[in-house]
Amino acid sequence: MKFNTVLDEVKVYEAGKPIELVVREYGVAENDIIKLASNENPYGTSPLVTKKVQELAKNMFMYPDDSMYELKEALANKFNVESANVVIGEGSDQVIDFCVKAKMNENTKMLMSKTTFAMYEIYGKQTGCTIVKTPDDEHNLAQFSELYKEHKPELVFLCLPNNPLGECLDKEDVYNFLDEVDSDTLVVVDGAYQEYATFKDAKKAIEPADLISKYKNCVYLGTFSKAYALGGMRTGYGIAQKEIVKTLHKLRPPFNITTLSLAAAIEALKDEAFVNDSISKNFDEMKRYEEYATTKGFSYIESYTNFITLKFDNLYISADVAQQLLERGVIVRDLTGYGLNAIRITIGSNEQNTRVFKVLDEVLTSLEKTENL
Amino acid sequence: MKFNTVLDEVKVYEAGKPIELVVREYGVAENDIIKLASNENPYGTSPLVTKKVQELAKNMFMYPDDSMYELKEALANKFNVESANVVIGEGSDQVIDFCVKAKMNENTKMLMSKTTFAMYEIYGKQTGCTIVKTPDDEHNLAQFSELYKEHKPELVFLCLPNNPLGECLDKEDVYNFLDEVDSDTLVVVDGAYQEYATFKDAKKAIEPADLISKYKNCVYLGTFSKAYALGGMRTGYGIAQKEIVKTLHKLRPPFNITTLSLAAAIEALKDEAFVNDSISKNFDEMKRYEEYATTKGFSYIESYTNFITLKFDNLYISADVAQQLLERGVIVRDLTGYGLNAIRITIGSNEQNTRVFKVLDEVLTSLEKTENL
Repeated sequence: MKFNTVLDEVKVYEAGKPIELVVREYGVAENDIIKLASNENPYGTSPLVTKKVQELAKNMFMYPDDSMYELKEALANKFNVESANVVIGEGSDQVIDFCVKAKMNENTKMLMSKTTFAMYEIYGKQTGCTIVKTPDDEHNLAQFSELYKEHKPELVFLCLPNNPLGECLDKEDVYNFLDEVDSDTLVVVDGAYQEYATFKDAKKAIEPADLISKYKNCVYLGTFSKAYALGGMRTGYGIAQKEIVKTLHKLRPPFNITTLSLAAAIEALKDEAFVNDSISKNFDEMKRYEEYATTKGFSYIESYTNFITLKFDNLYISADVAQQLLERGVIVRDLTGYGLNAIRITIGSNEQNTRVFKVLDEVLTSLEKTENL
Repeated sequence: MKFNTVLDEVKVYEAGKPIELVVREYGVAENDIIKLASNENPYGTSPLVTKKVQELAKNMFMYPDDSMYELKEALANKFNVESANVVIGEGSDQVIDFCVKAKMNENTKMLMSKTTFAMYEIYGKQTGCTIVKTPDDEHNLAQFSELYKEHKPELVFLCLPNNPLGECLDKEDVYNFLDEVDSDTLVVVDGAYQEYATFKDAKKAIEPADLISKYKNCVYLGTFSKAYALGGMRTGYGIAQKEIVKTLHKLRPPFNITTLSLAAAIEALKDEAFVNDSISKNFDEMKRYEEYATTKGFSYIESYTNFITLKFDNLYISADVAQQLLERGVIVRDLTGYGLNAIRITIGSNEQNTRVFKVLDEVLTSLEKTENL
C-alpha cells in the first residue's frame, strides 16, 4: 500500500526502556530495577493526588469535561493569564504537534538546536517541512540569530532548559533574540523543565504571562510530567495569545486527556509543597553526580533540570556503559543516537543514586578491562 | 499570525455536554443530572478494573510501557492475530487520525457516509483532502460503490454500526463491497460499537482476523470506551496487516495512552462477564425506548449500539427537545447539526431511563403548548 511519501523520512521516537522490558529481556527482578531514563520524578506522585485519583477511579467509564474548564481556570490563575490563553494537551508533547501542524507544510522551515527534544523534528517531518538546525549541540543564540535571518523559518523551537542536554539560556538573552523575530514566526518556548531552572537560577526564569504579552508570537509550553510527577498521566499545556490558542484548538482532538488525568492535574496544582520539595532534593542529589563525574575524570553539562548528561569523552563508549547498566537493572539514556558519546541520567532519589554509583563503578571497572579506546 | 490555510475549513468537534457544565449553567444539582449524550456505559466501570487502577494510582509519576507489550498481546490473543498487527491509540479516534494522516493530502479523496462519526471529516479537513459523502444519511453500499468507482478515493470509512445513527450493515454486504475496492485504497472499518451489533445479530459480526486476512487493505478499529466502560481512559486500537501497522506507528506519539489507561484496558479484557452483562441489559432497555417512541408517534432508527436515534419528523423540533431536557438535567445529543430533526440518546440504566421518559413526557407536553409546526 502507498502512503504519504513524507512518512518515508519519519523515524519513530525511541522511548526510555520500560521496567517491564528489562524484566522480560534480562531477567532482572522488578524490584531491583532503577529506571532513570525518562526524567520521571523519583519522589513519586503526590499522596494527595494519588488519593484523589483513587476516589475517582470509579468514574473511568465517563469522558472528561472536554472544555477542561476547571484545569484551565487553575492554570490561568497560577500563571496570571486567562482561560482563553490556555490549551491542554496530552502532554506538552501534543501541544508541540498542534504548533507544528498549525504552521508547517512542505514549503516551510523550522529552526531548532542541533540536540534537543526529538519530537520537534519527528512532528516536523510528518509535514514535509525543511528542518534547520544550529551547528552546536547546546542552544547557541548567535547561531539561532544567524540561521533565523538566513532562512526566515515559520517556526522556532527553544527548549528552556534543554532536553536531553540540560543547559538553559538566560531569559534576557532569549528576549534579545525574540526581539529580532518577525511577528509571523511562531516561537515555541518549551518550558517542560522550567520549574527546575527557575529554582536553581532566577536569571533562567521565564514567566508565561510576561513572555506572551511582550512577544505575541510565542507559545509557552508546560507539563505535569516532570516536577508535578504525573508523567504517566500525559497532561501538558500551552499558553499563548487567544488568537493562537483558538487555532491550536482546531487541532485538538476531543477528550484529549483522560478523566483521571484531568482530576490528577487539578489536584497536583494544589500541592505545590510536594513540587518544591522534589525540586530541592533534586539539586542536592545532582551535586553527587557532579562530584562522581569529576572523580572519575569525565565531564558533564551544567544542568537546570532533573537529569544530568555525562560525557565520556575518550574514556568509555556510552553505548557500552548504558548497555552494561541496563543488564544490571539501571536504565539510563544513551545519547549515541544524537551523535554524542554521553549518557543522560535522571537524578534519582538518594537511595537510587547510591546504587547507581555502585553499579556504575562495577561497569566502569569491567569496561576498563575489555575496552581499548 | 498566518496559519496553514487548510485550518480555515476545520470545525471543532462538539463534544457531549459534560455534567459540570449543566451544573454551572443551569444550576441543576450534580446528582440530579443524567448524562446520556456520549454513549458511555451506564453500568459504570467494572469493579475489577476500578480496584486495579486504585492499586496502581501511586504509579502515575511513571510513563507507561511505550511498547504496550502486555495490552497488544492480550488483544492479539483475543482477536487471534499477532501483536505486530495491533496499534494502540488514545481512543480509536486517534487511530482514525493515524489512518487519515498516513494516506491523505490535498490531492486525495476520502469517502464516507453522509451522517457518520464527525472525526473522519475533521481529521480529513486538516489534510486539505477532498471529502466525498453518500447522499443518504445511513450507510448505503450501492451509493458507496457508485461513488467509489467515480472518485477512486484513497481512504474509505465504514462505521459498523454507525455513530450517531445506530444502523449497521451486514457483513456479507460489506465484504461484497470490499471485493470491488482497489488494494491501494485503505478501508477503515470502525467497530467502536461492534460488540453490541454482534450480540444483537450475528449477521453484523465482523471478525478482525477474518477481515484483514481477506482484505489486506483494511484497518479494523476497536475501543475500550463503550462496551468496556472506559470512555474516560481514552484507549482504542487498530488491527491491520503488519505493513500498515508499521506505517501507523510512525504517526503514533510516544506514550500515547496513560499508565492507568494501559493497566485498565489490560484488566478490562479479563472481565468479559461485565461486558456481556452490560450489553444484554442495554438491549432490554432499548426496547423501552422503541415502545416509548411508538407510543408518542415518532420514529426511530433500528439500533445495533448503546444509543438510539429518535426522529421527531414534523411533531417537534429536536433542538428544542434537547434544550428543554438539558435544563431539566437530562443531557442528550441533538442532531440538528447533522441536518436531522432528531436526537441521539444513550441507553441508560433502568432507573435512568425511567426518569428520562418522565422528563421527556414533561418536555413534550410543554412544547405542544408552545410550538406551532
